[in-house]
Parts: sequence; C-alpha cells; structure tokens
Amino acid sequence: MSIISKLDQRAQKTGSLLCVGLDSNINRLPKRFLKEEHPQFEFNKWIIEQTHQYVCSYKPNLAFYEARGAAGWNELTMTTKHLRQNHPDIFLIADAKRADIGSTNEGYVTAILDELGFDAITLSPYLGREALEPFLERQDKACIILCRTSNPGAGEFQDLETEGKPIWLHVAEKVVGDWNKHDNCMLVVGATYPEELEQVRQAVGEMWLLVPGVGEQGGDMEAVLKVGLNSQERGLVINSSRGIIFADDPEEEAKKLFEAIKK
Amino acid sequence: MSIISKLDQRAQKTGSLLCVGLDSNINRLPKRFLKEEHPQFEFNKWIIEQTHQYVCSYKPNLAFYEARGAAGWNELTMTTKHLRQNHPDIFLIADAKRADIGSTNEGYVTAILDELGFDAITLSPYLGREALEPFLERQDKACIILCRTSNPGAGEFQDLETEGKPIWLHVAEKVVGDWNKHDNCMLVVGATYPEELEQVRQAVGEMWLLVPGVGEQGGDMEAVLKVGLNSQERGLVINSSRGIIFADDPEEEAKKLFEAIKK
Repeated sequence: MSIISKLDQRAQKTGSLLCVGLDSNINRLPKRFLKEEHPQFEFNKWIIEQTHQYVCSYKPNLAFYEARGAAGWNELTMTTKHLRQNHPDIFLIADAKRADIGSTNEGYVTAILDELGFDAITLSPYLGREALEPFLERQDKACIILCRTSNPGAGEFQDLETEGKPIWLHVAEKVVGDWNKHDNCMLVVGATYPEELEQVRQAVGEMWLLVPGVGEQGGDMEAVLKVGLNSQERGLVINSSRGIIFADDPEEEAKKLFEAIKK
Repeated sequence: MSIISKLDQRAQKTGSLLCVGLDSNINRLPKRFLKEEHPQFEFNKWIIEQTHQYVCSYKPNLAFYEARGAAGWNELTMTTKHLRQNHPDIFLIADAKRADIGSTNEGYVTAILDELGFDAITLSPYLGREALEPFLERQDKACIILCRTSNPGAGEFQDLETEGKPIWLHVAEKVVGDWNKHDNCMLVVGATYPEELEQVRQAVGEMWLLVPGVGEQGGDMEAVLKVGLNSQERGLVINSSRGIIFADDPEEEAKKLFEAIKK
C-alpha cells in the first residue's frame, strides 16, 4: 500500500483536506507558553488539541525549530512523537525544502524521516532526480517536490520557458512521468497561483498536491477548490499556518476552513 | 568592507584556496572518536588541528549533524564556536542548501548565520531573489547560490535552455547582475563540470565561486584552476570533504591539495 493511502484514508474518514502548518515561531507564541520549559512543544500540543478533528495533516516548517538550535530540534522531536502516539492516522509533513547530492541526502533521510518519523518531506527539484534518490527510494515515505511555490517572486526562474513550457510544468511532468515509480510523489503548488494549479492538475492526473498560501499569504480557497481537486474530489492538502495557529481562537479558525473546504 | 574580503584576505595571507568539508558522518568516523561524549566535535577539532594551516575555509554540511538530531546540532554549535575562537580569520560556510518563502527564511538566518555564527550559507535559487531577501540583505554575511551542482544528474533541470541559455547560466547572470547589491554573493559550480565553470567565470567577472567535487566525486583540480580563477588568480574556494577528512592522514592529504593548488 502506498504511503499516499494514509493521507487518502484520513481525508476520506474525516472529510478534511485541511493541513495545519505548525510554524510555531517562538517570537509569536502567546505569552503564557513562554513560561513553559518546552514552549514550542506545549504550544503545538495545544494547537493539536484544538484542531485535530478538522485536519488530514500537520506540517511543521523546520526553520522555526532550527532557529532555536538543539532546543528547537528537541521540541520538534517531542511534537512528532506526540502526534504519532495520539493521532497515528494523521499525515505528517516536514516542510524542509531540502536537497543535496545523493550520498549527503542520506543524512536528511535519517534525521527527518527516520528519527523524527515524518511521513513526508518537501524537496527542491533543482539538483534533479538522481540526487533525490535516497528520498524517492523510500516507498514508505512521501516526497513532495516544489513545483510552483506560493511566494510573490516565485516566477523568476520557475516561469522561464523552454520547449514551450515553463520550468514548473517541466517539473510536474518529470515527477509524474519519471520520479513517481513508487507512487510516493506529490507536488507543491501555491494557492496564490490558481491558473498554474489548474495546469498542474491537468498534467498530473490524480496525484496529490500540497497547496500552501491560503490565510496570511492571501490565496483564494474557492479558486483552489474549483481547479485543483482530482476526480475523487480529493487530491489537495490545503495548508494554513499563521492564519490558524496565531488566530485568537485556532479551533474556530480551523473549523471555518474545514467547513469552507467541505462546501 | 564586504564579507567576501574576509575570504580574500585569508586566501592572500595563506596562499590557499582550499576548503575542507567537515562532512563528519558519524558512521564513518574513526572508532576512537565514538567513545567520546561529543564524537563529531572531537573529530572536527582533530581535523582542524591537522589542516588549518592549509585552508581558507571550512564547510560543514548540515545534513550530517541533523542526522543526529539535537546532539548533532549541539556538536555543530561547539565546532563553529571553537573555530571562531581559535581561527577567527577562516571563512565558515554552512552547506545547508536552504530556501523557503521570505518570512520563513528568517528562522534559518537566526539559526545558521546568527546562532551558529557562519559567515556564509549555500542557498537554492528555485524560489527566486524575493524569497531570499532575508539572506541577501545581510551585508555581513555571504550568500552562496547553487548554480551548477556537482552531482551526475545535475543537468535534468539546470541544462534546460531558455532564451538560448541553460538555466544555470540564467542563475549566474541574475546573481551577478541583480542579487549582488551588497557585494555578498557567490555561486556554487561543481568541479565535475569544468566547461560550465569556464562559462560561469566569463559571466560573473571577479565573483568568488565555491567549487565542490574534487576528491571522491572525481573533479579534476587542474582543469578547475585552468578555467576558474579570477584575474587576481583567486576567486575559487575549492572544496574537498571525504577525500581529506577520512584519509589515513588528513594533514598529508590537505597539504597535497594545498600544494597542487599553489602550483
């Protein structure tokens, strides 16, 4: 069974395509958590308690943990352990945007997929498939390749056209046609670019897409759902990070997005 | 004074363009270090003792420290602290190949440039200049952008041609023409691709290049020097990692490369 089935089953069971980004920036945590011995972990535990019934996935961005050095790594480890024990059916994505030459990637495989126990990791395509083999060969883990990123300046290289197609579309076609031998690949396409999302959906068939950029980045949920779903009306993991976790009432905010997606 | 001057001055003073990659994979350390409380740190200290007189730069790849979680981060922190105290004029590169959307990169800036105190960090260009601004704006730190990587499959996307030029050349031209406002940019070009290195040198003038891939990856030192030096006969940071640190005699191996470069 492909690792993607874990995601699909959770989405079916809960009717949710929502991912909550655990971007638990220490500088933005509510004050009451700063008194705790493990502030990021305690905050995450609280967010998970508030939101788990509405999500198919959680996605911590590693930058916010690395920013605190060894202490941050430790609290990220506590977070993934807590999730695997209490919510083993939720799909855990490491937003790491890693990529190195082949042998070096084995370090990241050990760290992020084995030690931290994530189900999936985001990866940059720039070094090509050959470099990413240590990730792609892991049939029990998912590789989520950056295709069209959500940031305003994403097009600087991603929009360069070659053979009549922009780079991001080349990435989508390579991943679906060549990299996905173990049925463990997904793509990142920003909610801020619904036209590109529509073209990616046409290029990749049923493949699942990770869609960041709703919430603080301003992506339009309705547009995303209109063009991004696969034939089973799933196939999208729609992520909101700051818009949920730093809301006055994260539960209410997650519920609102959950219901907006369900409609 | 630009941060690149630190590198240039060290290269002038020592006559060295050699960088030793502290890719201190715990699975390959000599057995005697595994008994230590901080094996990667003790190994690094020994390698630094053996090689410092021959180098202009050290470059730990973060994957090998992350692989050990919080313990690895801790030993990387000990390593950079040791280097800054004992060899403050050596240029310290974090081989991290990071890149995220703008606000998130601030986490990496804090972690890698401030807390760990590196002088420079390697970055992926895929998200564009706008995303990398938190790095580029740091005039006191250097940004080393992946241009043509050293791995065998580097060409899958990097060789795609647009407007008559491969993507890697677009990256070189953008970085030199637009990203380098604070005179703090460098590029990565693999020693395994001397023809591309020659074209990059022509495109970027005096800009310093980080050249990995001599040693175990098989890059040809003579070819690199022939086409890669700038007009001052510097401008290259030539990295060897495994070929030096896991040699029977790392000092001898570093000396050999140092002398090969000097000739």
